Amino acid sequence: MTPSSLSLKPALDAIGHAMDQRFDRLLPVPPDSRARLFEAMRHAAIGGGKRMRPLLVVAACDLFHVDRERALRVALAIECIHVYSLIHDDMPCMDDDDMRRGKPTVHKAFDEATAVLAGDSLHALAFEILAHEATHEDPFARVELVTALAVASGPSGMAGGQMMDLVSGDELYDLNGVTRLQQLKTGALIGFCLEAGAIMGRIGEAQRTSLRGYARDLGLAFQIADDLLDVEGSAEAAGKAVGKDEAAGKATFVSLLGVERARTQASMLIDQAIAHLASFGPEADLLRAIARFAIERDR
Amino acid sequence: MTPSSLSLKPALDAIGHAMDQRFDRLLPVPPDSRARLFEAMRHAAIGGGKRMRPLLVVAACDLFHVDRERALRVALAIECIHVYSLIHDDMPCMDDDDMRRGKPTVHKAFDEATAVLAGDSLHALAFEILAHEATHEDPFARVELVTALAVASGPSGMAGGQMMDLVSGDELYDLNGVTRLQQLKTGALIGFCLEAGAIMGRIGEAQRTSLRGYARDLGLAFQIADDLLDVEGSAEAAGKAVGKDEAAGKATFVSLLGVERARTQASMLIDQAIAHLASFGPEADLLRAIARFAIERDR
Repeated sequence: MTPSSLSLKPALDAIGHAMDQRFDRLLPVPPDSRARLFEAMRHAAIGGGKRMRPLLVVAACDLFHVDRERALRVALAIECIHVYSLIHDDMPCMDDDDMRRGKPTVHKAFDEATAVLAGDSLHALAFEILAHEATHEDPFARVELVTALAVASGPSGMAGGQMMDLVSGDELYDLNGVTRLQQLKTGALIGFCLEAGAIMGRIGEAQRTSLRGYARDLGLAFQIADDLLDVEGSAEAAGKAVGKDEAAGKATFVSLLGVERARTQASMLIDQAIAHLASFGPEADLLRAIARFAIERDR
Repeated sequence: MTPSSLSLKPALDAIGHAMDQRFDRLLPVPPDSRARLFEAMRHAAIGGGKRMRPLLVVAACDLFHVDRERALRVALAIECIHVYSLIHDDMPCMDDDDMRRGKPTVHKAFDEATAVLAGDSLHALAFEILAHEATHEDPFARVELVTALAVASGPSGMAGGQMMDLVSGDELYDLNGVTRLQQLKTGALIGFCLEAGAIMGRIGEAQRTSLRGYARDLGLAFQIADDLLDVEGSAEAAGKAVGKDEAAGKATFVSLLGVERARTQASMLIDQAIAHLASFGPEADLLRAIARFAIERDR
């Protein structure tokens, strides 16, 4: 374990615990025939994952002294979206993965129909959480959060990126194409995590630019690290199947740049991401630690 | 054609045209590899369906003199949710339908992965539309719309009802069970349509009770009519396969009550629904006509 991942461990453990606790409260199994739906959501949402996106939300909210309970509501909403996307993405008609976060995927542990509905349900819950007055007393902040998350997760964001990924066989994309794909598929939601801090803190447009820069660079570095993990990592460390991109003939940062240049590029992006935080003091240390962790997690 | 469906025809034609026009503007096909995603959404959303839910939204908004353009935005949002649910529901792992609204379903015309993503994309777009300031100048109204739609479409509403439906083989439910299932699966969204009128008009709790009563009775009558259509109708009239509930051994209003009692029950519910509108004048005539149409469409 490297020094920065060591220093991040307490924060990751704390956010993991906070998310598990809140998912447990959000998803009580009802005493009727919807039980299976809630059990499937619990299976996917509780007790797994690095919780990087929730941690980013909390770290961004900390910059502007946002109440922790409120920050955790936004973190829960983004994790609802992330988990729904994993459930759908793992389905046989999509990535066809049997394992996720070290457990059977939802369509394996339950069935495909339940996987569709569990994803759809978490999707709706994300917006219900954001729109609730407990998230922010100012309804302007709440509609801004709803808009930002809908854009980041919809066809101009995550879902659009997943579509680009679906049609990406036969090395369709060059470096620009892969960058664009990843900015939509994973970058948009990471961007939301930082934007959410600014919205919750009611911070003006001008001050948001540096956070957007941080999010953009972090998102790409994160994806390059993911591509490296897919090539070099073990299934055990990744918690899912590896080597799938190469098998599918998909262009990735690693296939386009090679391992060494990809690693250098990720490292450069992290330096850039941290440089965007120069105007912040120690209150941005968690964001800095997350950035360093992003490219170390595969080692 | 009966008198009431005749009188409703201009309104149905007008809302159909308005929805098609707005979906066309909402979903321009982008000049990149997301094109297929937008084409799939257009395939499902444009040029089909009775547009009953959008018409209900407009009729409910008319009660409170809501600006028509704004009412149509809410109508578009609810139709996004309805269309997404049809796309996912038609998939092989769910209802496995090849035809919808007289056209091949999305997973047949495109593929299953595209169907998952097209549904997910329309889901996100619904909330983006509601949260936009063009929908209502008061952000309180917008967050109220978001909350109401998320609850109506999520695990305590439509998705929960779909789950109940999935596990409903072997005549699992009695009349109470089927009523509860349908109140979640289709009733919750119909309830939202009426609630949306009250939210858009900034109408207090007290005045909403009669609209809720109307929505509840209409929703059940609508479902009974659907069950009758499944037993008696032709695939051509329904625009989809019929006789599926019986084949799947699912309890329906018709299997529990028989055709004649089901028809009587639907008729009684429509009388009740219209009675809930007694405090309204001619401004509720469209809601009255919709109610009568709901049980005549299968003849």
